[in-house]
Amino acid sequence: MSSDSLPGLADVEAAARRIAGVATRTPLIESPILSRRTGRDVYLKLECFQPIKVFKIRGAYNKISQLKEGSVVAASSGNHGIAVAYACRLLGKKCSVVVPGEAVKEKVETILEYGADVVKAGTLSSEREARARELARSTGSAFVHPFDDFDVIAGQGTCGLEIIEQLSDFDSVLVPVGGGGLISGVSTAVKALRPKAKVFGVEPQGAPKLAAALDAKRIITVPSPHSMSDGLLPTALGERTFRICSRNVDGAYVVTEEEILEATRALVKDARIIAEPSGATALAPLFSKSSRALGERVVVLISGGNISQGLLAQILTR
Amino acid sequence: MSSDSLPGLADVEAAARRIAGVATRTPLIESPILSRRTGRDVYLKLECFQPIKVFKIRGAYNKISQLKEGSVVAASSGNHGIAVAYACRLLGKKCSVVVPGEAVKEKVETILEYGADVVKAGTLSSEREARARELARSTGSAFVHPFDDFDVIAGQGTCGLEIIEQLSDFDSVLVPVGGGGLISGVSTAVKALRPKAKVFGVEPQGAPKLAAALDAKRIITVPSPHSMSDGLLPTALGERTFRICSRNVDGAYVVTEEEILEATRALVKDARIIAEPSGATALAPLFSKSSRALGERVVVLISGGNISQGLLAQILTR
Repeated sequence: MSSDSLPGLADVEAAARRIAGVATRTPLIESPILSRRTGRDVYLKLECFQPIKVFKIRGAYNKISQLKEGSVVAASSGNHGIAVAYACRLLGKKCSVVVPGEAVKEKVETILEYGADVVKAGTLSSEREARARELARSTGSAFVHPFDDFDVIAGQGTCGLEIIEQLSDFDSVLVPVGGGGLISGVSTAVKALRPKAKVFGVEPQGAPKLAAALDAKRIITVPSPHSMSDGLLPTALGERTFRICSRNVDGAYVVTEEEILEATRALVKDARIIAEPSGATALAPLFSKSSRALGERVVVLISGGNISQGLLAQILTR
Repeated sequence: MSSDSLPGLADVEAAARRIAGVATRTPLIESPILSRRTGRDVYLKLECFQPIKVFKIRGAYNKISQLKEGSVVAASSGNHGIAVAYACRLLGKKCSVVVPGEAVKEKVETILEYGADVVKAGTLSSEREARARELARSTGSAFVHPFDDFDVIAGQGTCGLEIIEQLSDFDSVLVPVGGGGLISGVSTAVKALRPKAKVFGVEPQGAPKLAAALDAKRIITVPSPHSMSDGLLPTALGERTFRICSRNVDGAYVVTEEEILEATRALVKDARIIAEPSGATALAPLFSKSSRALGERVVVLISGGNISQGLLAQILTR
């Protein structure tokens, strides 16, 4: 594969075989209460039930299981780091993760628990990436990008394959957008196998990388991305994810912090699902920005559940 | 069928056809973190994802869909009442539910929301049952018992059928015990199709009906059952559930309030599952009373998720 090739359905299917038994085939459930509240059939794809509580094991394992290097470096606000550390432990590789100074404490602890080294550096994802690439070069390690990577995207796509196998028919899929790895993979599977279904991205108002890029038809950098959805804060889409999103994605919903909070709370209250704010973000448009384009049967990708107990308690008592 | 006949596998299979599309085929997931913590392979059967957040829709719908009467009366501390009200609404029947004065507020509100009348009466389940039977007689309605009923037991058994279909092999199943309807149904399916698998009941120290009955080899009444597991507080097993448990059940674990609380907390923290204390009770023995009898692969039946937000927040902040 050339360095700028994009994964297709066959690559996603190959990834599904590679990750079988490592990533969980997560449940897809209908939520009758959310369906009633939103006037549609709402199905939730529950990536919070992955062994590491977040979808990123799919891409990380698909990538790292194919590496020749014995050691790996990643830059991550948390969830990608957790996934890379977990995959490296399973595969017997050494692992270092560069995290921001203000990384969520529980996420850093989990990375350490999986046996990886943690390096704190910078507040912007671009600074951390530079630091991690430098570390990889100087130690002969492989650098694993959190989203703009052929094998990472193909791995995330397995989540889309499962949705297609689990639900015979649906009109649209809502996917949270950080750097665009998940929506790139999922849309690759969905557009190949269910060409009529629409794929929408959802992102915080403080980090509207996809909406801006679709508008401008080029990669747009958000200088200071901010949101309680700490997994959705890269400064921009990648080269590959931009190209895939331009081709596959039917639109982007931008949601407020209050809407993200309400979505997180509704998942607990109405569907008994514990998601982190990033993981609940894709539900938000159904309450406030719902449009005819979504259709009757909507799949919402709940991407992760690494929320701290403190924040969860706070959400419940507000 | 004679009034004292007991349901068999064919009755459970017939129930499965009747409830298809009404009750959810709930997910069965492995919990890697709980598996690591307990040194076994722990699988969770998630009845908290039923449309009414609790397994009881299975038995109630199987029963009520076969009734000729146009109106139904139930006595319940909450979850059975919710199930009967929900089934009656789907089937276009009138419904009254007799609840205790101290019933959980959210559960009573849910019953009212489903269009049933609520009658508050008595603190003991025996008093409420008498009141409900009287009401049924005087209004020509059918009385639906929460557990000691052929069709209710057959309906709950569908949960056991699903476990067998979802997991090719397991050593034991842990089931929470109130009046014994769920464990009677589940054990009927399991013992017919997986005769080597063991079935254990789990109940609160303040309401050890099954443990006492298995010891004494007769129905034992617990005068003042008490526990935060408010769904497990009947005063005794029923005639039918006692006979089935005597034949099918391999033992009973009795757990403390502290252990129930810890199980509820562990489900949230380690498995991202929101269960009510009754629904989490079956997990408790794995932490403290675990024995070789359970084997390597253990299925834990998480029976319901109707916990109040206040209690959930309290559990998270302790």
